[in-house]
Amino acid sequence: MKLGLNLSFAIKRWIGGENMARIISEELGYDRVQFTWDLVDPSWPADTRDRIAGDYAQSFRKAGIAIESSFGGLASYTYNHFLAPTRDLRDLGKLHLRNAIDMTAAMEVKAAGMPLGSYSAADALDRQRREEIYREALEAIVELSRHAKSRGLETLLIEPVPLSTEFPSSAEDALRLMRDLDGATDIPVRLLVDWGHAMFPALFGDDANMDHWQKTCGEFIHSYHIQQTDGLLDRHWNFTRKGIVTPELLAEFWNRHGLTDQTYFLEIIYPFEQPDDEVLSDMKNATRLLRAVQ
Amino acid sequence: MKLGLNLSFAIKRWIGGENMARIISEELGYDRVQFTWDLVDPSWPADTRDRIAGDYAQSFRKAGIAIESSFGGLASYTYNHFLAPTRDLRDLGKLHLRNAIDMTAAMEVKAAGMPLGSYSAADALDRQRREEIYREALEAIVELSRHAKSRGLETLLIEPVPLSTEFPSSAEDALRLMRDLDGATDIPVRLLVDWGHAMFPALFGDDANMDHWQKTCGEFIHSYHIQQTDGLLDRHWNFTRKGIVTPELLAEFWNRHGLTDQTYFLEIIYPFEQPDDEVLSDMKNATRLLRAVQ
Repeated sequence: MKLGLNLSFAIKRWIGGENMARIISEELGYDRVQFTWDLVDPSWPADTRDRIAGDYAQSFRKAGIAIESSFGGLASYTYNHFLAPTRDLRDLGKLHLRNAIDMTAAMEVKAAGMPLGSYSAADALDRQRREEIYREALEAIVELSRHAKSRGLETLLIEPVPLSTEFPSSAEDALRLMRDLDGATDIPVRLLVDWGHAMFPALFGDDANMDHWQKTCGEFIHSYHIQQTDGLLDRHWNFTRKGIVTPELLAEFWNRHGLTDQTYFLEIIYPFEQPDDEVLSDMKNATRLLRAVQ
Repeated sequence: MKLGLNLSFAIKRWIGGENMARIISEELGYDRVQFTWDLVDPSWPADTRDRIAGDYAQSFRKAGIAIESSFGGLASYTYNHFLAPTRDLRDLGKLHLRNAIDMTAAMEVKAAGMPLGSYSAADALDRQRREEIYREALEAIVELSRHAKSRGLETLLIEPVPLSTEFPSSAEDALRLMRDLDGATDIPVRLLVDWGHAMFPALFGDDANMDHWQKTCGEFIHSYHIQQTDGLLDRHWNFTRKGIVTPELLAEFWNRHGLTDQTYFLEIIYPFEQPDDEVLSDMKNATRLLRAVQ
């Protein structure tokens, strides 16, 4: 299986291109990463933002590390974006992804993505409002795909999340989004599916397994987030912990479906108050467990 | 004890002034809140940002809800800000608080605050670097206090956090910061102390209790965050859960120290995937428990 590293584990700890490249390459031994917007906020003034993001990109390249995509993290996930209840807020969601596309282009990275957004509590229960806002979101993504193409990007990614108040959450939602966008966008929009979001029985019942996702919308899956979870909440634990996702399950799935290109990005979110040395050592141990089953 | 409500519990769920005012006032019965930047990102373009923030402020006032301060939340806490390893990043921290001050002024709210920031893993272990960066942070806060005064603010707030890689974390750190700023700023800079951050034995040992904080830097404490925790991580659970902070302890502390003005802001952070109705019902139950001991 093709392993990559989402950089969420590192936020606030290992800062700056050279420093981070050393951690990724020498300490953890990865040559493929997904850059998180939690390291560089897309809303920072463009000149400074692109200088900081460019430093990561150049250092990574120098160290032989490919940046496959850039992706929204914790800070991005805090706001409602494309599914917000007001026009003002939805426009800000659009601006957010537009800024992220520009930053991604400045890094000479070819793909960028995020979850689509969150309905308000009230809108989530109103079928007609959901539908109207969803239609607007489609238009916004189509428009942004044009911008992304003009900036040299080749793919946009949307991540389903385990909440009925957001969209897409189920595999069926995700398929609908893909079909609604297919052929309408200037560059392909594809799915990034998180194993911990998919294996969420409280929301998906018997369909809370990756085979269901693969069967339903597998042709649109561009890459995966992998994380350990107990299926009760969206844990983003590492594989040093026991849970319902095992390295063996990941490898068996990869092999049985004959996957080749769809990177498994290890996306671990540590509590901020966990000491840096514990985080690094835990990342090493988990990486060892994942490599043992390849 | 004087209870207030930090709005972190509501993010992505109850959006917009009128909607949120109804939840705060009618559903939960609070008349005093701390507004979180997780509802309005200070980095949004100023016109739109101030229109959205202003809508909250006007609706709250109409409903008789006082906004005592605005404060950084999850998204803000994702970045290194004033203690970042590079000048670029530290300047962005300064811009972040400056934007938040402008937004707070547009809401006609008199106080704003956040944690100061985070050192990188490397800087955190280097006493000299820590000191140099800390000195710069002091200058930045002094400069921002001038800006805040010019915009009509009366207080800036800094929140200590339970991490040795950030500053201030201990009560002694917090006292040092207060003394270093005292008299140098154009408006007072004060502490907002979180009970769950203070009661963190892994870092503070025997001093992990609020009496120690009160004794050490109590004269500078402007307000508190209250949350339930097990003392192992920074949980931000609600008081419907068992833990080391009890409503009785909060009330006993308030009465014994003869507190009068320093609002206890209930700051609860729910997993995003927790259903909205569960969150609201949990907030009601916890509020009932807190009011029972007043």
